[in-house]
Amino acid sequence: MNRYSNKNLSSGFWKWGDPAKAFHLNDFPRFKSFLEEKWKRKLNDDFKAPDITQLIPESTFSENDFSKTFPNLKQEQFSNSKESRILYGFGKSCHDIIRIFSGKIPPLPDFVLFPESEDEVEHILQNASKNKIRLIPFSGGSNVTGAFELNEKNVSCVVNLQRMKRMVAIDETSHTATFETGIFGPELEKILNAKGFTLGHFPQSFEYSALGGWLATRSGGQESGQYGKIEDMVLGIRAITPNGIIDTKDFPKHASGIDTFRLFIGSEGTLGIITQAKLRIHKLQSEQKWIVALFKTFDEGAEAVRCLLQQGIHPGILRLSDPLETKLFSTMRNSESGGLKKLIGALIKSRLASKGFNEPCILMTRFSIRNDSDFAMTKFTCRFFKSHNGFILPSSTAGNWEEHRFTLPYLRDTLIEHRVMIDTFETIAYWKNTSALYLNVKESLKKSAFYDKGGLLFCHLSHVYETGACLYFTMIAPMERSNEEAQWMNYKTLVTDAIIESGGAVSHHHGVGKDHQPWYLKTIDAGEKELLQAVKKHLDPNGIMNPGKLFDPEN
Amino acid sequence: MNRYSNKNLSSGFWKWGDPAKAFHLNDFPRFKSFLEEKWKRKLNDDFKAPDITQLIPESTFSENDFSKTFPNLKQEQFSNSKESRILYGFGKSCHDIIRIFSGKIPPLPDFVLFPESEDEVEHILQNASKNKIRLIPFSGGSNVTGAFELNEKNVSCVVNLQRMKRMVAIDETSHTATFETGIFGPELEKILNAKGFTLGHFPQSFEYSALGGWLATRSGGQESGQYGKIEDMVLGIRAITPNGIIDTKDFPKHASGIDTFRLFIGSEGTLGIITQAKLRIHKLQSEQKWIVALFKTFDEGAEAVRCLLQQGIHPGILRLSDPLETKLFSTMRNSESGGLKKLIGALIKSRLASKGFNEPCILMTRFSIRNDSDFAMTKFTCRFFKSHNGFILPSSTAGNWEEHRFTLPYLRDTLIEHRVMIDTFETIAYWKNTSALYLNVKESLKKSAFYDKGGLLFCHLSHVYETGACLYFTMIAPMERSNEEAQWMNYKTLVTDAIIESGGAVSHHHGVGKDHQPWYLKTIDAGEKELLQAVKKHLDPNGIMNPGKLFDPEN
Repeated sequence: MNRYSNKNLSSGFWKWGDPAKAFHLNDFPRFKSFLEEKWKRKLNDDFKAPDITQLIPESTFSENDFSKTFPNLKQEQFSNSKESRILYGFGKSCHDIIRIFSGKIPPLPDFVLFPESEDEVEHILQNASKNKIRLIPFSGGSNVTGAFELNEKNVSCVVNLQRMKRMVAIDETSHTATFETGIFGPELEKILNAKGFTLGHFPQSFEYSALGGWLATRSGGQESGQYGKIEDMVLGIRAITPNGIIDTKDFPKHASGIDTFRLFIGSEGTLGIITQAKLRIHKLQSEQKWIVALFKTFDEGAEAVRCLLQQGIHPGILRLSDPLETKLFSTMRNSESGGLKKLIGALIKSRLASKGFNEPCILMTRFSIRNDSDFAMTKFTCRFFKSHNGFILPSSTAGNWEEHRFTLPYLRDTLIEHRVMIDTFETIAYWKNTSALYLNVKESLKKSAFYDKGGLLFCHLSHVYETGACLYFTMIAPMERSNEEAQWMNYKTLVTDAIIESGGAVSHHHGVGKDHQPWYLKTIDAGEKELLQAVKKHLDPNGIMNPGKLFDPEN
Repeated sequence: MNRYSNKNLSSGFWKWGDPAKAFHLNDFPRFKSFLEEKWKRKLNDDFKAPDITQLIPESTFSENDFSKTFPNLKQEQFSNSKESRILYGFGKSCHDIIRIFSGKIPPLPDFVLFPESEDEVEHILQNASKNKIRLIPFSGGSNVTGAFELNEKNVSCVVNLQRMKRMVAIDETSHTATFETGIFGPELEKILNAKGFTLGHFPQSFEYSALGGWLATRSGGQESGQYGKIEDMVLGIRAITPNGIIDTKDFPKHASGIDTFRLFIGSEGTLGIITQAKLRIHKLQSEQKWIVALFKTFDEGAEAVRCLLQQGIHPGILRLSDPLETKLFSTMRNSESGGLKKLIGALIKSRLASKGFNEPCILMTRFSIRNDSDFAMTKFTCRFFKSHNGFILPSSTAGNWEEHRFTLPYLRDTLIEHRVMIDTFETIAYWKNTSALYLNVKESLKKSAFYDKGGLLFCHLSHVYETGACLYFTMIAPMERSNEEAQWMNYKTLVTDAIIESGGAVSHHHGVGKDHQPWYLKTIDAGEKELLQAVKKHLDPNGIMNPGKLFDPEN
């Protein structure tokens, strides 16, 4: 199944996921009212994407060029149609969408290829290298970082891996499985689940992202506390480069020299195409338990999280929202009749206020219950939160988040149609820096008209470690008509500057892409940059692999 | 403190550790009797190392050469004495010792330098590169793989890092600490312990190995179940190469491109010198609990271990001995009066035998008790072992191992003086392969006279993961007079061939060195080898860094 088969240009190609699952801002009436009251205006969905087919030139790479350049491929593995070039030429970022809406279309690829085997990938890379055709590896296409962005030079081609989606091997004794990298999250899990296993990688993009992209961008899933990030799951890869194949021998662990394959993790397509990966898998867990608590301040909640982690307790999922996110989270609940909502309402209005929880922060933690020890962990966590001044809420409070864990990108789309700018910024810092980073990022937007115009910035802490935590900010602001890209760029710059100055990473799990490259280049030292360039020079002597990204200067 | 300051050539420079802590085979009378009865001869300590100062040439690198080549260094940072060249020219392997004893001295370094700062390391690398002087980085010197071995060509120099042993920074909030890499295990732990922390890295060599070597060889400690291997502990490094400094920005985790520093982990000195490392640290744990059980067969014990791990239970220490190791382990207990010994004796002779535990395998697991959940884990583990046909022994049974956890290398030395060959072979394999690998290794020595001459081969499983386990074999055999090296080489080759053919890694935690290089070269593919050579060419264009190791062909 091509997960984009239900998409075409007229049904909103730029939107997230499955049109049948999309919803409208009106489906969240309390949230909509909240924004309208704050901004003192009605929100209308009158911002529409133009027909961008009219705005882009025809491909410079003909069917004839294709036949001559890639003789081993079949005709139906090639497309230079405007539709393909558009569908596979954009990521899913706010920046992408704003440019589509304002008709400022960046250079798009000239054609798309659909290899079905490693031999075909090799054929593509070798012939593209000979002909200096730039290649953009593409698996799910869900990036929000400008990962595919091109400059105007030379011919360029998207290598769409979605036909390479087999499970190549499974070892049920050793708990490993090898997959081709064009496989999407749900298909991968379906295959594993049928055998009683899970990979445990559930990024918010899960339904529309694929293994290759996860590996190339160092993706992190919502259950990283239990299963780790993708780089913790991978035991080995096979990668095809313009200079040949890298096929490293894998072991559970080893002391047999350098882990060469790690060069490809986070390489964002600059070195070659990862075609297969061997991954750690786990027995499916059926029983889960949520422990949910409120804290009086974000700092107090974060401190409880840090101390819990440093006690050796690692919830599978952990998410601490700041006061504003907690408040908005409650407006996202629609059911007026839910016992839960009533309960929370009652608590907030009476007991909590009297206890000083005026602007509480919600902390949700989820544990897999595999044995008594896991169960004892939940009991301990409950007591631990109480002893850190947390107020325990019913487990069911987490139900709303769990229900919507993969659907929030749909909300983004309807907000944009209502001329509401929404974007996310994520980073990771050592615990020593998280509190100041949080404040600095909030403060940074004061250098713009963001708050004056009613902009909202909120944050949650997730993907936590003994040494630090990922801070995930969401920004919502009224769009400035006809100035959307500059407005976005201004906010993005202020926030990212503040992140980097506060000791945060360019990204914890989204990656670098074109959007973060200026800051990435500030943070890597000269020696590292030259070393990576030497690695690229060796693997990709003609510089055709996703050029101009990461350490690779525009050429 | 120079941990070799209590050593000189006359006190047995080739021996392990502190002469004051060394012991004699007579200190283990039951073990000695066991060997004597098996081999039907008395064991005498009449095998002595010759004075090898008589066997080696004077250095070709004079004080004058030193002053001209390394003008920034002080005179006392240089030595070309035979004593220094010998002390810092050997590792601690069986192969090293056998060659010393038989007077077959491999090429030794021409001189030793003792840098005290990163600037001095840079000075050394740049001037050595200009002058094509080969450099061997040296921190603890405890390697058992021929890691320092040289061929005859060119001048060579040991860069001894033992004066670079500061803690550079500690972050008690984020649980990280940065150390210079010449620091030995006990000093590092002492500094951290004083602040309530531990690194948690306790290889058997702990007392006489240092951080730099741990990183360069991918070391693994006995508590890897709780703290991971060294590569899991390291957040970032600073490395100096002949082509400049690699100083990567570190984060708890990130999605900001390629983890370049990982190239240095396991690089065994071939790319540069790691001068600093930032490490994850942990609160000191005071309470520990052992769960000890016997299993009827090694396979049954291994299966219980695998299933336990795959349940998400990770003991801090885990060690499953095969029947022969279990038996020898019991002969190592000296106390006749111990209640324990009596108990085990009684158990073995009556109840156990009646239950089919004729040649039992001992499984020792240790847990840190930080909270109720950890305690519940020990209860669960106990029940789990019983349900897997394990027979639970008192926790105190593990006391003997714990007492001797760092002292077994001393036993090696006294055995060799008794003309007993003793060496260890370690590997890791996926669970699917561990059982066959164990049998194949035992079988492999049948191709030699090993068993006919009374050789003993035993094994334990340790450093276990959800996906696989490290198998650690010990071989004990009577030495063939005047044929020691060939005898050793024969056994080593048979065993390592069997390991590789059975899907095992060249090493789980000892590293590659010269001894394992032939097998390492068989297991890496051409693309990987060329890529690593390109990396080396960039960082070390004159090929001076520990040349002829890993992927680097002899030059």
